[in-house]
Amino acid sequence: MDKRTEIGSIGEFGLINRLAQPFHSPHPWTSLGIGDDAALLQADGLEVVSTTELLIEGVHFDLAYCPLTHLGFKVVSVALSDVAAMNAKPTQISIGLGLSNRFSVEAVEELYAGIKLACEEYKIDLVGGDTTASPNGLIISISALGLVSPTKLTKRSGAKANDVICVTGDLGGALLGLQSLEREKQVYLANPSMQPELDGKSYVVMRQLKPMARFDILHELKELGVVPTSMIDCSDGLASEIIHLCQASNTGARIFEKNIPIDDETYLSATEFNLSPLTAALNGGEDYELVFTVSQADFEKVEKLADVSAIGYMTDVINERVLIMKSDQIIDLTAPGFGQA
Amino acid sequence: MDKRTEIGSIGEFGLINRLAQPFHSPHPWTSLGIGDDAALLQADGLEVVSTTELLIEGVHFDLAYCPLTHLGFKVVSVALSDVAAMNAKPTQISIGLGLSNRFSVEAVEELYAGIKLACEEYKIDLVGGDTTASPNGLIISISALGLVSPTKLTKRSGAKANDVICVTGDLGGALLGLQSLEREKQVYLANPSMQPELDGKSYVVMRQLKPMARFDILHELKELGVVPTSMIDCSDGLASEIIHLCQASNTGARIFEKNIPIDDETYLSATEFNLSPLTAALNGGEDYELVFTVSQADFEKVEKLADVSAIGYMTDVINERVLIMKSDQIIDLTAPGFGQA
Repeated sequence: MDKRTEIGSIGEFGLINRLAQPFHSPHPWTSLGIGDDAALLQADGLEVVSTTELLIEGVHFDLAYCPLTHLGFKVVSVALSDVAAMNAKPTQISIGLGLSNRFSVEAVEELYAGIKLACEEYKIDLVGGDTTASPNGLIISISALGLVSPTKLTKRSGAKANDVICVTGDLGGALLGLQSLEREKQVYLANPSMQPELDGKSYVVMRQLKPMARFDILHELKELGVVPTSMIDCSDGLASEIIHLCQASNTGARIFEKNIPIDDETYLSATEFNLSPLTAALNGGEDYELVFTVSQADFEKVEKLADVSAIGYMTDVINERVLIMKSDQIIDLTAPGFGQA
Repeated sequence: MDKRTEIGSIGEFGLINRLAQPFHSPHPWTSLGIGDDAALLQADGLEVVSTTELLIEGVHFDLAYCPLTHLGFKVVSVALSDVAAMNAKPTQISIGLGLSNRFSVEAVEELYAGIKLACEEYKIDLVGGDTTASPNGLIISISALGLVSPTKLTKRSGAKANDVICVTGDLGGALLGLQSLEREKQVYLANPSMQPELDGKSYVVMRQLKPMARFDILHELKELGVVPTSMIDCSDGLASEIIHLCQASNTGARIFEKNIPIDDETYLSATEFNLSPLTAALNGGEDYELVFTVSQADFEKVEKLADVSAIGYMTDVINERVLIMKSDQIIDLTAPGFGQA
C-alpha cells in the first residue's frame, strides 16, 4: 500500500519545505526564490510580463481521470501559454494550493512532480507559493512571470487589415480528449472491473491531459526574424480568440473552414461522439495553441513552418467576424464567454 | 430590493469588462494593464518582487460578518504586506476569482469596490485577473508585484546577533476582532432580531476586517536612512515570524513579554473571551504588522518612531528562541504551522 503522510503531521511549513526541496539551482534572473515573503526577478531593461490563473477541482479538472502529475504539468502550461501569447520568455512561477484533508503529503508531492517536470521543460523557476486548507477539494492558483524586449512584445491589439491570421498545431483535440476520459469515467463508475477503452484516443487524451505552451513556435518565428502583429493563446476556442483579437485591434476577420487544422483522431473521435469537429475547434477550448497575425510580407517566411496554418485574414470591416464554410456559406463567429451583452 | 444581475446574463467577458471599468489611468510603470493575455511592468533597473496568496471562503473569511467591500480591501492588504516585508514599493496586483452561482454581478462589484479603494490607498494598478465558476463559495487568488532597489532590499536572512528586534503597531487585535465577530454571528443565528453588540470592539473588529500593509513605517525608515537587516510580515503570529527570521538569519532571539505591544481594547477583549492577550499576540496572526531587525547603531534613530516597539534582540545562540516573561521565567517560542517535524 502506498504511504500516506497526513499534512498535519509535518505542518504547513514542513510541507512547504518538503515541496521546495527538489527545486534548486535558480536561474540567473531569479535573485531570490522560495523561502522569503516574496520572490525577486532581475529584469535588466526588459519588460516584465505577469499573469494569474485559478483552477478548481470539479470545474477545471476531475481527478478521477486526471493524474496529479499530469495536472501539475498542465497548470504550468496553462499559465505559461499566456506568457507565450505576449511573445515573452517565461522565467518564474508561484503556486497557491488549497487542499482538503483528502490530500496526503504524497499526493501533493505527485502534483509537484508534474510542476517540476514543467519547470524543467520550460526552463523556469518555481519561486514561491502558499498552501492552505480548503473545505472542498483541490484549488490551484498559479501566477507566472516572463520577460520580453519592448521591440518583440506582441499584444492582442496590433493586427491590421490584410494581415494573415495563423494558428499553431491543430484544434479541437482537447475537447475530444475530455469527452473520451469522461466516457471512460462513466463506464468505470457503472462497472469498476471494466478496463479503460482509450484505443485510438491517445492523441486527443494527451491534448487534454498534457497541453504544451508553444514556445517552440515563438523560437521558430524569432529565427525567421518575424514578430507577429497580434497574438493570443487559444484557451477558450478559436472563435473566442478571433473575436478578442478583432476587438483589441479594431479589425474584422474572415476565416475559412477548409483551412482550420483538425487532427484525424480529433475528427474521428468527434464523429464517434456525434459532435461537429468544426465546433470542437471553434468552441472547444483548452488547446493552448497560439493564434497570431503577421503582415503579408512576413507571411512568406512563416508559410514554410510545418506546424503553422494560415486560416484567414483581417479586414477593415469592424464587427465582421465570419467563417466561410466549405459550402461557401458565410456564418458569424460567436463565442459563449461573451454572454448576451 | 437590491438589483441582482446573474453573471450568466452578461457572460464571463462582460463581467471582466464591467469590473475593469473603474480601474483606469495606470501608473507609468504599468505598460499594459487589463485586457491582454498578461500584464506588463517596467522595472527600470530595479528588482521585481512577486508574491501570491490564496483565500478561501470558510477558511480565510466568513461572509456572514465580513462585508464584501472590506474583504476586497483586505485581500489586497494581505498580498501587499508581503511586498512591504521586502522593503519594496508595490506596483501591480492581479486577481483570480472563483464564484459559485450564489454570487451576482452586484456582489462581485462590491468586492471590487473594496479592491479599488485599496488600489487607491496603496497607489497601485489592478492589471489583470481571471474569473471562473466555483462549485462551493468564493475563492480569491491575488498576486502582487513590487519594485525595490538592490540596496534597499530586505530579506528574512540578514539579521546579526545583537540586532534589535522591532515590531510595528500592536499585536493580537485581529484575533480578538475575529472572536468578537464570531460571537455576534452565533447570537444572530440563535436570534436574528438581536442587534449586534460590538460596543468597545471597534478597534479589534477593524483590525480583523481592514488590516493595513505598513508602507507608512517603511516610508519613515527611509526618511531616517535606515534599512532593516531583516524583515517579515506578521501574518501567522509573532512567534512564528521570529522563528522564521532566526531560521533564515541563523540566529537566536530573546524577546520580552513586557515590550510586546498590545492595545488596551485587545487586552480587555481577550480577558472577556478568557484568552491570554500574550497568546493572541504570539499566535493569533492576521495582524499584518512588520517584524524587523536593525543594527544597534540604527536603533537610536528608529527608537524615536511612535509606532515601532523594540521587543528584544538577536543572539548568536542558534535554536535559542525564547520569551522572557514579566515574571523572569524563560519559555521557548513555538508556532503551530511548523508541525511536529
